[in-house]
Amino acid sequence: MRKAGIVPLAVVLCLVAALCVVAAAALAPKAPSPGSTHSASANLPSYAANGDLLPPAHYREWIFLTSGFNMSYTAKPAGMPMFDNVFVNPAAYRAFLRTGTWPDKTMLVLEVREAKSKASINRRGNFQSPAVTDLEVHVKDEARFPGKWAFFSFDSPASNGTLIPSGAPCYSCHAAHGAVDTTFVQFYPTLLPVALKKGTLSAELLEEMRNARK
Amino acid sequence: MRKAGIVPLAVVLCLVAALCVVAAAALAPKAPSPGSTHSASANLPSYAANGDLLPPAHYREWIFLTSGFNMSYTAKPAGMPMFDNVFVNPAAYRAFLRTGTWPDKTMLVLEVREAKSKASINRRGNFQSPAVTDLEVHVKDEARFPGKWAFFSFDSPASNGTLIPSGAPCYSCHAAHGAVDTTFVQFYPTLLPVALKKGTLSAELLEEMRNARK
Repeated sequence: MRKAGIVPLAVVLCLVAALCVVAAAALAPKAPSPGSTHSASANLPSYAANGDLLPPAHYREWIFLTSGFNMSYTAKPAGMPMFDNVFVNPAAYRAFLRTGTWPDKTMLVLEVREAKSKASINRRGNFQSPAVTDLEVHVKDEARFPGKWAFFSFDSPASNGTLIPSGAPCYSCHAAHGAVDTTFVQFYPTLLPVALKKGTLSAELLEEMRNARK
Repeated sequence: MRKAGIVPLAVVLCLVAALCVVAAAALAPKAPSPGSTHSASANLPSYAANGDLLPPAHYREWIFLTSGFNMSYTAKPAGMPMFDNVFVNPAAYRAFLRTGTWPDKTMLVLEVREAKSKASINRRGNFQSPAVTDLEVHVKDEARFPGKWAFFSFDSPASNGTLIPSGAPCYSCHAAHGAVDTTFVQFYPTLLPVALKKGTLSAELLEEMRNARK
């Protein structure tokens, strides 16, 4: 279940993700958790005594940002087809609409589901399965994390999340390529125009957009 | 822009959709609309004087149900790759969780976006584009529509929606194959288990699920 940072990707397929799996498994063994599992209250990050992130119980009622299909940052062929859905807590979303960037206590949830094809009357393309195969959360908590943000990996939507160590490649990848404040706003269709208007996009992404127009 | 009923599909590619396009275009010419464009208030259906549905301005802040990729009910090859996102008004969602079916004033929004692939650091798979290429709404308004439900097609997310006539194939297709109350709950990953538990799934879908387990 452990893998790379919050991206609208089938990150299981990603090299960065694979390295995070190793790093997280090696450095942050999680079971059994000393903290009991409780849901985060008020849609803000809450932690167990051991530092685990409590599960964001109502994230399916948060703001949907996007869904990707079989995304990968490498040319490696995809495995099992999957969708990744990204949600954000409503307060952070509203702040982004005003400012073009993320406030403290932002939580971005990446939920991965198996993609199915031939069922009911569907004959082509893919739809989403009830089973969640992966879940992780990217949290901005400025007073808690030296780099302001941290990634947590969940064994299930109801379990506590394990911190992925700050040296894991997901952090450096997000720092280098995230369009806004280490996050992949370039893949969030309703927020990309907001960031463009507010002038908060990274120099790298602006350069890419200029090149795409040539 | 006009096409078939609310389904988590790239319905542009669907025969039912194609027939709806013809029906809607032939029977319900919409421009210029005599009613001015106003957003629906309180996330409930509101109508212009001519019967157009006012645009659900805040649907991106409603409850996300699912996203499909290139879905089609026919074996016809897909055209431009696309995603379809489905949202529901929060009051209807909460009622569904309690009852396993839809209350009066339910609004299901189908939003279609172009799928892109190679941009930023993405190399494989697909992500969603900022441009909305299609939008339609499936409304339950028992006092207003003889069949309780109606489909509306929008030229843009900000325009008023045109009623698709009740004889269009999308109505009969949804009636025949919708898992719950003429809607495609079989493709909504968080609601399918609710309907199964509440005993509200259609006989057709239950039979299919039994066969799939054999």
